[in-house]
This record gives sequence, C-alpha cells and structure tokens, in this order.
Amino acid sequence: MQLLEDRIRREGTIRPGGILKVDNFLNHQIDTALLFEMSKEIKHLFARDRIDKVLTVEASGIALASMTAYLFSVPLVFAKKSKSRNISDDVYAVEVESFTHGNTNTVLVSRDYLLRGDRVLLIDDFLATGAALVGLKKLVEMAGGSVVGACVAVEKAFQGGGDKLRAEGMRIESLAKIASVSDEGEITFC
Amino acid sequence: MQLLEDRIRREGTIRPGGILKVDNFLNHQIDTALLFEMSKEIKHLFARDRIDKVLTVEASGIALASMTAYLFSVPLVFAKKSKSRNISDDVYAVEVESFTHGNTNTVLVSRDYLLRGDRVLLIDDFLATGAALVGLKKLVEMAGGSVVGACVAVEKAFQGGGDKLRAEGMRIESLAKIASVSDEGEITFC
Repeated sequence: MQLLEDRIRREGTIRPGGILKVDNFLNHQIDTALLFEMSKEIKHLFARDRIDKVLTVEASGIALASMTAYLFSVPLVFAKKSKSRNISDDVYAVEVESFTHGNTNTVLVSRDYLLRGDRVLLIDDFLATGAALVGLKKLVEMAGGSVVGACVAVEKAFQGGGDKLRAEGMRIESLAKIASVSDEGEITFC
Repeated sequence: MQLLEDRIRREGTIRPGGILKVDNFLNHQIDTALLFEMSKEIKHLFARDRIDKVLTVEASGIALASMTAYLFSVPLVFAKKSKSRNISDDVYAVEVESFTHGNTNTVLVSRDYLLRGDRVLLIDDFLATGAALVGLKKLVEMAGGSVVGACVAVEKAFQGGGDKLRAEGMRIESLAKIASVSDEGEITFC
C-alpha cells in the first residue's frame, strides 16, 4: 500500500536490533485518516471471503482491527495479555513470545467469543517472527473455528515469520512489507 | 444514550464487588456497529468544541477512542501502561491505580505526542473512581495542553469519580450512567 510505505519512508525510524518505530502515526499516536484508508484496503483484499469475526491481541492492533471489523460489519474480539499462568476454565489460552518486549505473555480469549465454525480474520500492526499470529490461530482452532487469513500493517519480511506461515498454508497480507533495514536507518520495501 | 443503556440492561452482568461486565459488546468482544453509534454521539456532544487530539489509555478504550478520533479528523494518542518505574526523559508519566485490576500502573505518553496548546478530548470505556481520567489530565497538563472534556462509555456514578471531577471543573459526558447495581444484578440508570 503506497500510502503506508511512503509514510514509513518519511517518518519511520530504526532502533538498534532492527526495531522499526512508527510511533508517530501507527502505534502510539495514530493518524486516524490513514487508519481508515488501511482498513478500506483490508476490506478490499478480503472482499470475497466470508468473515464472521476479526481477532487481534491487545493493545496496539486494536485501532486497526476495530476499524476493519466495522467495515466488515462484524464484531471485533481482542485477546487479552496476562502475566499469570493461572487461567480459568472459561477461556482459551496460549503462550506467546514478544519480539519487541523480549518477554512471554499468556494470551487468552473467553470461550464465549470464539465459536465452533467461526471464520476469523486476524489483524495486527506488526508481523516479525509471527509468534502473535501463531498464537491467535491456535486460539481460533481451540474453539473449532478457522482462520480465513491474516492482515498486518507492517511485515518485517527479513525476520521470516510471514513466509514461514505462508509455507504452512496461512494466507497473509501485509499493507507494507519491508525487505531490509540498514544500520544507517535506510528502509527497503519488497 | 438509549441504545447503550438498553444493551447494558439486556447483556450486562454484575460480578461481586460491583464490577459490571460488558465483555460481550464493549470490552473483549466489541459490537462495531454500536461502537460507531457511540462515536457519533460523542462527536455530537463535543461538536462545538475545538479538539486537536483524542487521548485514551491502553487497552480497552482504544477502539472507542480511535473511531471517535476518526470522526473528529484528529489523531488518537494512547497512553501506555508500564510496570516499570524506570521512565526515560522523553515521556510524561503518572501513577494510576486500577479499580478493576487492583494494582497501580505507570501510565506514559511520549513528549512528542502531547504538545503545548493541544486541546485534548479524553476517552475511556469506564469511569469508576476517576483515577484514569485524573492521570490522563495530568499528562496533558504536564505537556502544557488543556483538557476540553472527557467522555466515557459507562459511568458508574455510585463510585463517585465522575461527580468529583465535575466538582473540580472537568466537563464529563457519559453515554450510559449507572446509579446503582443490586446484589441480584439489577442495574438502575441515572
């Protein structure tokens, strides 16, 4: 998506360790006009698919996921992060490692909100190692639903998570796909 | 707002300790059509005010705040929660107690995203003791901005936070205002 790539080129910055910061318009301050355009593009990409629900994980994917779910006229469900491993019986739970934060969270969804037969679109802001999408897919499958596909705002292709998931058969769309970042902060798109 | 009150009456449940659960349509699964109607109502309530930015705190206020910011054609900023008290120089930070979770978080915003002179609308899903709104207001004032007002989806008036803030001069709007909840789970609106 040209609009997003241009914005990343103009305002994105690279921190040590290959961490792309897009805090200025995507995940701390959010440009809501851009958010709407991104959601419309996702709607367009999955226009032929039956989607029952959009699923994301808190916190920074919620804005994009809620706008997208609105355009699909379906509910948004956001999985919650918990430090605790004491999980009640009324939730589905998985462990997810965070590349950005360097820790592991339990990610959970109430059994009431993922149902057998649900056709679910996964949304997130970033795709790096793919750990979050793998976790969300597990939650959907624990409930007896299926993942129609996943769409992320920014895929860091050089971290390999996207292609690994594609090889396993998941449909992955990314609105901006980054091939590499240099130590000087130069960003190359796929 | 009749639509929201009706929904709470129909689907809200009360947990021990006066905790109202609206997970089914407001803060775990989100009814995005309702979300849009709520955002339109907020736009209507603050139609005469100049708003430069919408500010919320992660995570469950983000959906309402992002849709509202979109309708105002302004950026959304969401404050981040951190367990750490080691805060860098490039953020504004305050301590906020959570009634729901029974803990205290450091809530922070990058200095880049709250600016001197900013006229800010605060949005959150719940208002109970008012601690979150007090914290967000402090962040805005640390930056030299001002709070135009606050709008929450659900005010639990019986916990007093809203009226305390009104007495201090903050404009507070709530889309549903709950006077009391009984031990039998009956909900009375103001």
